[in-house]
Amino acid sequence: MTTRVPLSTLSPEDLAAFLAEKQAAYTALQERGLTLDLTRGKPAPEQLDLAEDLLRLPTTHLDRSGADVRNYGGLEGLLELREIFAELLGVEVAQLICQGNSSLTLMHQTVTNLLLWGGPGSPRPWKDEDVVRFVCPVPGYDRHFSMLADFGIEMVTVPMHHDGPDVEAVRALVENDPTVKGLWIVPTYANPSGAVCSQEVAAALMAMPSAAPDFRIFWDNAYALHHLTEEEVKSADALSLAAASGNPDRPILFASTSKITFAGAGVAVMAMSEANKAWFLQHLGMASIGPDKVNHLRHVEFFGDAEGVRAHMRKHRDIIAPKFAAVDDALTAELEGLDIAEWTRPTGGYFVNLDVLDGTASRVVELAKAAGIALTPAGSSFPLGQDPRDRNIRLAPTFPTLGEVETAMAGVATCVALAAAEKLSGQD
Amino acid sequence: MTTRVPLSTLSPEDLAAFLAEKQAAYTALQERGLTLDLTRGKPAPEQLDLAEDLLRLPTTHLDRSGADVRNYGGLEGLLELREIFAELLGVEVAQLICQGNSSLTLMHQTVTNLLLWGGPGSPRPWKDEDVVRFVCPVPGYDRHFSMLADFGIEMVTVPMHHDGPDVEAVRALVENDPTVKGLWIVPTYANPSGAVCSQEVAAALMAMPSAAPDFRIFWDNAYALHHLTEEEVKSADALSLAAASGNPDRPILFASTSKITFAGAGVAVMAMSEANKAWFLQHLGMASIGPDKVNHLRHVEFFGDAEGVRAHMRKHRDIIAPKFAAVDDALTAELEGLDIAEWTRPTGGYFVNLDVLDGTASRVVELAKAAGIALTPAGSSFPLGQDPRDRNIRLAPTFPTLGEVETAMAGVATCVALAAAEKLSGQD
Repeated sequence: MTTRVPLSTLSPEDLAAFLAEKQAAYTALQERGLTLDLTRGKPAPEQLDLAEDLLRLPTTHLDRSGADVRNYGGLEGLLELREIFAELLGVEVAQLICQGNSSLTLMHQTVTNLLLWGGPGSPRPWKDEDVVRFVCPVPGYDRHFSMLADFGIEMVTVPMHHDGPDVEAVRALVENDPTVKGLWIVPTYANPSGAVCSQEVAAALMAMPSAAPDFRIFWDNAYALHHLTEEEVKSADALSLAAASGNPDRPILFASTSKITFAGAGVAVMAMSEANKAWFLQHLGMASIGPDKVNHLRHVEFFGDAEGVRAHMRKHRDIIAPKFAAVDDALTAELEGLDIAEWTRPTGGYFVNLDVLDGTASRVVELAKAAGIALTPAGSSFPLGQDPRDRNIRLAPTFPTLGEVETAMAGVATCVALAAAEKLSGQD
Repeated sequence: MTTRVPLSTLSPEDLAAFLAEKQAAYTALQERGLTLDLTRGKPAPEQLDLAEDLLRLPTTHLDRSGADVRNYGGLEGLLELREIFAELLGVEVAQLICQGNSSLTLMHQTVTNLLLWGGPGSPRPWKDEDVVRFVCPVPGYDRHFSMLADFGIEMVTVPMHHDGPDVEAVRALVENDPTVKGLWIVPTYANPSGAVCSQEVAAALMAMPSAAPDFRIFWDNAYALHHLTEEEVKSADALSLAAASGNPDRPILFASTSKITFAGAGVAVMAMSEANKAWFLQHLGMASIGPDKVNHLRHVEFFGDAEGVRAHMRKHRDIIAPKFAAVDDALTAELEGLDIAEWTRPTGGYFVNLDVLDGTASRVVELAKAAGIALTPAGSSFPLGQDPRDRNIRLAPTFPTLGEVETAMAGVATCVALAAAEKLSGQD
């Protein structure tokens, strides 16, 4: 390493030398002809192998009540599976339903229902409002934002802190603007920041007055059980906090086994107040005669109980925690002390949030691509893909092998340093 | 049997004797304390057993291309499954997608998309129209009607004939009324009439001018492969007929394996024009990262190819054809010649359509219920449950055992005769 003082404090000559060094390193990187992909939060094959026994299950076609899971019916999902996920998510069984292979689908259906019919407390269907806005903590999950854009729902951003969304910024919007109908949050090990919404922040979100009588919080707890350390954080109890504050219908919880068993062949769950559940099932009953209960039973047999799920998640942790450590190691080795990048060391979830020098994220992604390393497009974690500071990059290290992560991240670190040197040299 | 002349021609004395005889038979029926159910078109356990090997499949987690079906992606569904169903439904593979467990869900999503965004050819989203109407051939499928009612879409009925909807009645609506945006039809072995839409009727439906530029025909081919005889009728080629008439985007085809493998744990398919497919996938991609490809592969391994599906359906036929024969036998034995009921002898599908004496369907269902025989509520096959002649009853004989069908249908026949005698005696 040539230096470990902040890059911005270098003399023009030292900066030129640093730039030249990084250009040479980058040329060498390109010459390796890599083809690596850190774009999406996908489980690795080794993780999927953990659930391979699912392919031989279930061993019976009868559920605990004696009902035939191969036939129609059971709109709420298999009771024994609902019991397992109610325990895991800390909700009542009666509040929870199990459905198909994707919580994203359940979220989409929920917004659709609100648009077409309104929900409990709605003065009218959302489609009949002049404008509907959602509060979007940023950085956040790109699929939430693209879905809202497709629905024509406007997005207003607030900062995401290490303990959840900026409460005062949320409050200023929610309390005063009746067009603010929703907020979308990944409360535990957020995508991409890894933030965990604290009990205090959760309580404030559930209790704050809202100008809209049908303000909804989409509590996308995709990573509730996806711990990367032995400290297994407990998600805030959104439903109880909301009910205690007199806003029982505000939060709707979503989760799935997409990153527990199989991505796309798992089960999705949803938990909510009695009124929200009756409302959701009423419309769901028009679209479905029941979920895939064979797959529900398959999962029940595979896990046994809630502790079976937790034990299974520890096997995932053993596979992916070293990959997250490799990300940190590579970034630390190349960038520590240069004051041109900050990154998270998440204790759970699927992502590392990398903030580079303002105005260089797009350049980093471009450099990486030209060196055969695919990164999520810069700005992906912001509504409409627009990062106002062009500094945010989402890293997804689970799918590649450990060796690939090490190689790719060393390359990314080179690109970060090179882009920063270009910028500070006035060469961008 | 007391008589085989039309009941309406009996002298008052003979009618009174007939009524007394049927009242006695009904009392005896009640005393048997039956608990039988002919309400829904559900496969029998013996039919579900035909696909029990699915519970041990798939034997691999890789598809033909080498992709891991346990991971995200593949929005259109597994290619090898799409190939099988494209052959079975007589469409191009490129026109067909495979999704989750229910074609009803796909239909619901299609209407939702049209409401929120409009489709190819739409001047505006359907939600922004003052009124949207659908043409509904009657009798028809109750879930189509209840879904439309939930969406706030008005329903205009036309008669269903043995060869499909009354073309001239449809034309009068579709040609002149721009609020008529859709028509829903079960083209092959219709629910409940068993009608098969002829090539001529299909061609007329696809070719007729429409006042609405985005008129859609929901071609719900739920029973395309569900033959009850050795004559395996071929469905009209809706997509080709529509394309040849310059209306390629008019029809959207739906089907599923709900009554082929498992009801609720099967796969659903959809076929449509290139423009419709691009449109559908664009919005689907906001709600899903891909269908359950493990279940797709499971079905591919189970069937092997299209002929495997056809062979499987013949096993279904062997199980359920005797139940349909038992329905006909029971009704013939009790009612033939009385001129108080007509019923279908379907060559496929899941239902028998029973038309009783005008004004007595509700009474028949009531009598049956009081004798422990559950029938679908009278009027179920009409929009909003309103049969203007109160004569239509949908019988679903697949789920009960053959013995149960025989017992139940003998009881139903008694109820039909009793209700007619009451009516003609002025006792209703």
